[in-house]
Amino acid sequence: MTDPTTAGTTTGGTTSTTSSTTSAPGWHAAWLPDEALRPLGTRGVRLLATGDDPVLTTVRAEVARAAQVARGTTTSAPVTLALAADALAAAGPGAAPRLRTAAEHAIALAERPGLAGTLGAQGFVVTRDEGALVVVAAQPRGLLAGWHHLVRTGGDTSGEAAGDLAVHVPAQAVRMLDHWDNLAADSPMGPVERGYAGASLWFADGRVRDDLTRVEHYARLLAHTGINAVCLNNVNVHARESALLTTGIDQVARLATIFRAAGISTYLAVDFAAPITSGALDTSDPLDDDVRAWWERAFADVYATIPDFGGVVVKADSEGRPGPFAYGRTHADGANLLGRALAPHGGTVFWRAFVYDHRQDWRDRGTDRARAAYDHFTPLDGQFDDNAVLQVKLGPVDFQVREPLSPLLAAMPHTRLAMELQVTQEYTGQQQHVCYLAPLWREALDFRPWGPVGGADAAETDARTVADVVRGTDALPGGLVAVANVGDDPFWTGHPLAQANLYAYGRLTWDPTLDPSDLLDEWAARTFPQAGPAVARTVHALLDDSWHVYESYTAPLGIGFMVRPGHHYGPDVDGYEYTPWGTYHFADRDGIGVDRTRATGTGFTGQYPAPWRDVYESLETCPDELLLFFHHVPYTHVLHSGSTVVQHVYDTHVEGAAATQRMRDTWRDVRGVVPDEVFDRVAARLDEQVRSAAEWRDQINTYFWRKSGIPDPQNRVIP
Amino acid sequence: MTDPTTAGTTTGGTTSTTSSTTSAPGWHAAWLPDEALRPLGTRGVRLLATGDDPVLTTVRAEVARAAQVARGTTTSAPVTLALAADALAAAGPGAAPRLRTAAEHAIALAERPGLAGTLGAQGFVVTRDEGALVVVAAQPRGLLAGWHHLVRTGGDTSGEAAGDLAVHVPAQAVRMLDHWDNLAADSPMGPVERGYAGASLWFADGRVRDDLTRVEHYARLLAHTGINAVCLNNVNVHARESALLTTGIDQVARLATIFRAAGISTYLAVDFAAPITSGALDTSDPLDDDVRAWWERAFADVYATIPDFGGVVVKADSEGRPGPFAYGRTHADGANLLGRALAPHGGTVFWRAFVYDHRQDWRDRGTDRARAAYDHFTPLDGQFDDNAVLQVKLGPVDFQVREPLSPLLAAMPHTRLAMELQVTQEYTGQQQHVCYLAPLWREALDFRPWGPVGGADAAETDARTVADVVRGTDALPGGLVAVANVGDDPFWTGHPLAQANLYAYGRLTWDPTLDPSDLLDEWAARTFPQAGPAVARTVHALLDDSWHVYESYTAPLGIGFMVRPGHHYGPDVDGYEYTPWGTYHFADRDGIGVDRTRATGTGFTGQYPAPWRDVYESLETCPDELLLFFHHVPYTHVLHSGSTVVQHVYDTHVEGAAATQRMRDTWRDVRGVVPDEVFDRVAARLDEQVRSAAEWRDQINTYFWRKSGIPDPQNRVIP
Repeated sequence: MTDPTTAGTTTGGTTSTTSSTTSAPGWHAAWLPDEALRPLGTRGVRLLATGDDPVLTTVRAEVARAAQVARGTTTSAPVTLALAADALAAAGPGAAPRLRTAAEHAIALAERPGLAGTLGAQGFVVTRDEGALVVVAAQPRGLLAGWHHLVRTGGDTSGEAAGDLAVHVPAQAVRMLDHWDNLAADSPMGPVERGYAGASLWFADGRVRDDLTRVEHYARLLAHTGINAVCLNNVNVHARESALLTTGIDQVARLATIFRAAGISTYLAVDFAAPITSGALDTSDPLDDDVRAWWERAFADVYATIPDFGGVVVKADSEGRPGPFAYGRTHADGANLLGRALAPHGGTVFWRAFVYDHRQDWRDRGTDRARAAYDHFTPLDGQFDDNAVLQVKLGPVDFQVREPLSPLLAAMPHTRLAMELQVTQEYTGQQQHVCYLAPLWREALDFRPWGPVGGADAAETDARTVADVVRGTDALPGGLVAVANVGDDPFWTGHPLAQANLYAYGRLTWDPTLDPSDLLDEWAARTFPQAGPAVARTVHALLDDSWHVYESYTAPLGIGFMVRPGHHYGPDVDGYEYTPWGTYHFADRDGIGVDRTRATGTGFTGQYPAPWRDVYESLETCPDELLLFFHHVPYTHVLHSGSTVVQHVYDTHVEGAAATQRMRDTWRDVRGVVPDEVFDRVAARLDEQVRSAAEWRDQINTYFWRKSGIPDPQNRVIP
Repeated sequence: MTDPTTAGTTTGGTTSTTSSTTSAPGWHAAWLPDEALRPLGTRGVRLLATGDDPVLTTVRAEVARAAQVARGTTTSAPVTLALAADALAAAGPGAAPRLRTAAEHAIALAERPGLAGTLGAQGFVVTRDEGALVVVAAQPRGLLAGWHHLVRTGGDTSGEAAGDLAVHVPAQAVRMLDHWDNLAADSPMGPVERGYAGASLWFADGRVRDDLTRVEHYARLLAHTGINAVCLNNVNVHARESALLTTGIDQVARLATIFRAAGISTYLAVDFAAPITSGALDTSDPLDDDVRAWWERAFADVYATIPDFGGVVVKADSEGRPGPFAYGRTHADGANLLGRALAPHGGTVFWRAFVYDHRQDWRDRGTDRARAAYDHFTPLDGQFDDNAVLQVKLGPVDFQVREPLSPLLAAMPHTRLAMELQVTQEYTGQQQHVCYLAPLWREALDFRPWGPVGGADAAETDARTVADVVRGTDALPGGLVAVANVGDDPFWTGHPLAQANLYAYGRLTWDPTLDPSDLLDEWAARTFPQAGPAVARTVHALLDDSWHVYESYTAPLGIGFMVRPGHHYGPDVDGYEYTPWGTYHFADRDGIGVDRTRATGTGFTGQYPAPWRDVYESLETCPDELLLFFHHVPYTHVLHSGSTVVQHVYDTHVEGAAATQRMRDTWRDVRGVVPDEVFDRVAARLDEQVRSAAEWRDQINTYFWRKSGIPDPQNRVIP
C-alpha cells in the first residue's frame, strides 16, 4: 500500500498555485492595489518633513506613487522605495512645519518632533487646517502610520472628530509577526513550518533570495496593518538556520533594510545551543562564561551589521529543542543570558513559554499538558530581565479552535508578557477552510482574567482585559505576536479570504477594540476596490461566523485535537489519543472529556484567579463550549443549551457541514464581480471545505455513535 | 506542535547504522563469510568444464577463492569475479567429463550438457565417484547451484542417498526478488519504498552507483539461496525511474552483468504510461499502434544492450498508477501489449493483480477490497499471453501478519500465476521487530485451495498445494516473487536476524518443502560459523515462533491493519478506519469484524472453492485466527479456544508483550559469542521491540476496554 503521509484526507500542507493572478508582477496586490492610492493622489499630498530617514524616504515614495496613480502614469509594477523626485515642499530641519496648504482638498503630512511625548514614535494626529487634511507625527514611523491611515480611509475623515485633534496611538508597542520560514524547501517540515501558502517569501535554496522585490510589497502590506516587528525564521532553528545569526547576517541585513524602510524591526529566531551548533563550544550553559562571551560577540557582530536589529525569539526546552534544563538552569537564566548580551545594543529577547513534556505517557491521566506553562514559569516571575518578554500562547494547549485563555497570562505580574496567536491556520483548516479568526482573538483580548464573568453582576477586583495585561507599561511593554500565514503563493495566503486574518491581526495589534466585522469591511473595500457592496455582503456571509462554523463540525465542546497526527488536517478522533503529546479526550463507551478540576482531576482549574477558577470548576457554570476541556461527562450529560452531549455532537456536525454548503452557494454571487482568479481559487477551496466538513461530520458522528450506542433521533448518523 | 510524521511511536522507516561491522569491506558477510568456503577449499576442487560463460567464470572464481581461503591467502576483501588462474583440469568442449578424480576427498564439478532433459538449466546431481564428491550439471547455472549446495553443506553429503544420484532440481522455475528501490534518496517514499535497511544497494543520487563491488557480493548471497531473478526498481515507477528502460539502459546493463554472472536475470519495473512519460506520445492505450510500436522499439533497444534481459514487472491501475482502465481496456490487453513486445526477445511480463479501489468510501460497508483482485481478474482467465505471468499477493488485502490465501490463486487455471510475498517487513515490524516469516510462507505454500481441510477426513478433489499451483507447467511455469528487505545497511537488512527471512525465502523458492526451523539452522551455521550451538539455540528461541508472537500483540484474529497510517509502524487502532483505503475493522461498543459471508456480508467467502467457501462462511468452522477477517461478532463471542473475543485480545496481548521480554533476555546468552556489532545491533532492536510491543499491548487493550466496557478479570488493562 502506497500512502506517503496521509490516509483518507486531502492534506492541506501543499498549495496548488494558479498560473495567472490579478496583478502583473505575478502576485495579488492584496489590500494595497494601486487604486487604493488614487483618492489621495488625486487630491495632492504635501510632505512637510526633511531628511534621509529610510521611513521618511518610504513616505516620500508612497506620496509620489499616489501622485503617479492619479496621473495614470504608474504601471502595476511593484512599488520601488527609491527616493521620489516629486515636488515636495519641505520645512527646514527642526522648524515647525507650515500646516497651511494651498488647495482646500489638499493633504499634508508633517513631522513635529516636539509631539513625541504625546504620540511616541509611532502615533499620529489627524486634523484639519482650513479645509486641508493634515497628519502630524513626531517621527517618520508615525508619519508612515498616518499615511496608511489615510490610504485605508481614502482620506475620508468623517470618522474623526471634526476640527479636533484625532490622536492615533497604537495600543501595543510590540506588534509582531513570526515567520516559521526555513532556509530550504527540503527542510524536514518544508519551506515554511505549518505554512499553507507555498514557500518562503525570502528564503530559497538555503539562502536569502536574490530578488526581494516581492518582500518590499509585503513590507508595505504589513506596515499598512500596523505590524512593526517581524521574526524571519522558524522557531525550530536547525543548524542551517542557526547560521543566519552568524555567517548569514549579511543576508539578513538585506531583509532588515527592506523592513526598516517600512518601519518594521527585524528579529531572528535563535537556537539556544548556537554556541555549540554555530560556535565551537561544547556547552550552551547559560551560566558559563564562554557561552556568555559567545553570545556577546555574536550580537556585537549582528549590531555592527544591523544597528537597529530588534532581537531574538527563542523556543527552548520545547518539543526537543535545546534549552537551559540540560544544565539544571531556569528559563530565566536562559532568557537573561540572551537578554544581557542584547542589552547594550537595545535588543529584546522573546522567550516562548510553550514548554511541556512531549514525551508524556498517555496511560498517566494525572499529568496534564495544560498545566505545564504555568507550572514551569510562575516560580520565575520577577526573575526575567527588563529586556526579556515571555511569549505565551493564547491557550494552555496549542492554538485549538477553542481553548480557555492561558492562565499564565494572569500569573506573571512582574514579567513582560506577550500573547502569541496563530494566524496560520494549522488547526483551523489550513487555509483550505474559511475560518476568520479575528472574533476568536477579540474574545481573548477582551477576556478579563479577574472577572467580572458576565456583566456588572460580579464584583470587580481587577477589571483589566488581556489586551491591558499584555500592553504592559510604557517603560516595559509586552505586546502581541502571531505566526504568519503567508508564503510565495500568488494570493499570499493560499486561500484569498485568509488574507483577512493577516489584515485583522495587524489592525487588532494597533487597536484591540476594533470590531472584527468592521475589519472585514475595511479589508474587502481595499482588496476589491472595484467590486462594491456585493462583495462586502458575500465576504460577511462567508467570514463573519466562519470560526464558529469550523468549530461546529470539528472537535466538539472544547475537547480539541481529533486531527490527523503530523499534518493536523482532517479528522482522526483517536489520532492523538494514545500518543506522548498530551492531547487526549478519554472517550470511552460511557463518556468523554478531561477532568481538569481541583476536586477530582488534574487541578488545572486552580491555575486561574477567581472567578474563573470556580466558573470552570463547576459543571453548573462551566461554559458549554469549554465543557470537555474541563470535565469528563457522560454522553447523556445535559448542556446549558438543553441538548445532551452526544446529541449536541450530532446536531452541530450536521449543521456545520450544511453551513459550508451554504457558504459555497453564497460565493457564487460574486462570480464576475471579483477577478476570475480570485473567484476560482476560492471556489475550489470551498469545494474542499464542503468535502472535508462532510468527512469531519461523518467521522465524528460515526465514532460517537459506535462508541455510545446512542442513535440520532433523526437518523442522520452513519453506523 | 512539531511532529513531522509520527506521533507516539518510533518510526521504523529509518535505520541507524553502526560504524563498524564484522567484515573489512564495510558490510557484514551474511551467510557467505570466507570461512564457509574453507571445507571445500581444503579438500581441493576440480572444475570439469570449459568456456567463457559468465556463470562458469563465476564458478571458477568461487573455486579459486575456496582454494585461497584454504591456503590462507585471502583477505576479507570482497570476492572478485575475475577468472581464476588456478590449475583446473578441463575436458574438451562437448566431451564427456572425466569423473574419476585423484584424491579420495577431492570434489569435482562437471558440466554434462546431455543431462539437460533431466536437470534443466538449473538443476544438478550430487554423487560419489570412488570416494570423490561429484556434482554434475547440464549447464553452468546448475554447476553454480551445485557449488552453493556444497558450500551450504560444507561438502557433507550424508544427507544425500549414498552412491545414488541425488537430483536437485528447483521446485519453481521463477524465483524472483523485487526491489522497490528508487533512484534517489529524495524520492517521495525514500531511497527504498517500504525499505528499512538504508538506501539502495545500487541506486544513489539519481543514477546507478559507480562502485558496485557490494552488489557483486549481494548477487553471490542471492545465488546461494536459489534466487534467479531480480527486479531492480520500485513498482511505483516515477518519471526518473521510468527512464531506466530507455536512456538509462546502459546503467542497468552494468547491474545486469553482475547478476548474469551469478545466474540471475535482470528485470525492470516499468510505468504503463511510459510511452507518454518517457516517450513523446499522448496515449498509452494498449490497442494503439503507436503505443505498440513504442514498446517494440523500446524493448528492441533494451535487448540490444542486455540480450538476456528477463522482462518487466508492472503495477497498473493500482493506487494511482496508470493502466489500461484509462482507455477502457482490460488488464489482459495491458499485459499482452508488453508481452508481445517482449516475446521476440524471450522476455516475460509480470503483471501485478494488486488492483483495488483506493478511493473507497468508508461509509459503504458493501464494498470489499478483499474481493477486488478476484473480481477484476477472473473474467480475464485465458486471455493472457503465454509470456505473461499474473503476480498475486499471498493474501487478498496486503501483506498483513495474518490473512487467508488470496482466492485468485485458485481461480485462474488458464493463466500463469506467481505468488508475491513480502520479505521486507512493512506490516510485520519493519525490521525493528524479530518476525521470522518462513512459517507464514510455508503455511501458504502448503495450503490446499481445494482441500482437504485437515487430514484424510475430507474428500480430495484436487490435492494440489499453492506451491503446486504456482509451479505451473514446464512449458508455462509460474513462480514465486517477493519484495526484498535489503539496503545499504552494514547488515543488509537493518536487523541482523532479518537476514534469515531473505535466506529462507530464497531456499523455499527452490524447495517449498524445506522446514523453516531447519532453515534457521542452515542460516545460523553459515552466518555465525565460529559460534556453535549456543547461537543456534538462541536463534531458534528468538525466531521459530516470532511470527506468532508478533501476531499476538498486534491486530487480533485476522482483522489486520490497526497500524499508524502512512508509515505503518506501531499501533493506531482506528488509523485506517475512516479512510478510503478499504481496510476497516468496524469495531463498535458491541463487537468487531468484517462480515464477508455470502449470507449477510460482502460475499467474499464465495470466491473460494469448496471446502473453504463453507469453512470460512460458518462461525462453527472458521479458524479462530481468521475469525474477524470473515465475521463481525460480539466481543463476547466464544472462540474455539474457549476464550471470548475480548478476553482473547487481552490475554494474547499481555502474553505477546511478555514474550518479547523473554526474547530480549535470551539474546543476552550470546553476548561475546556473536560479534559485538551484531550483538549490539540486535540488542538495541530488541529493546525497541519490547517497547513497541508494550505500546501495542496497551493501546489495543485500552481501546477494547474503553469500547466494550468488559474488564479484564486479572486487571491487567489500563482504562
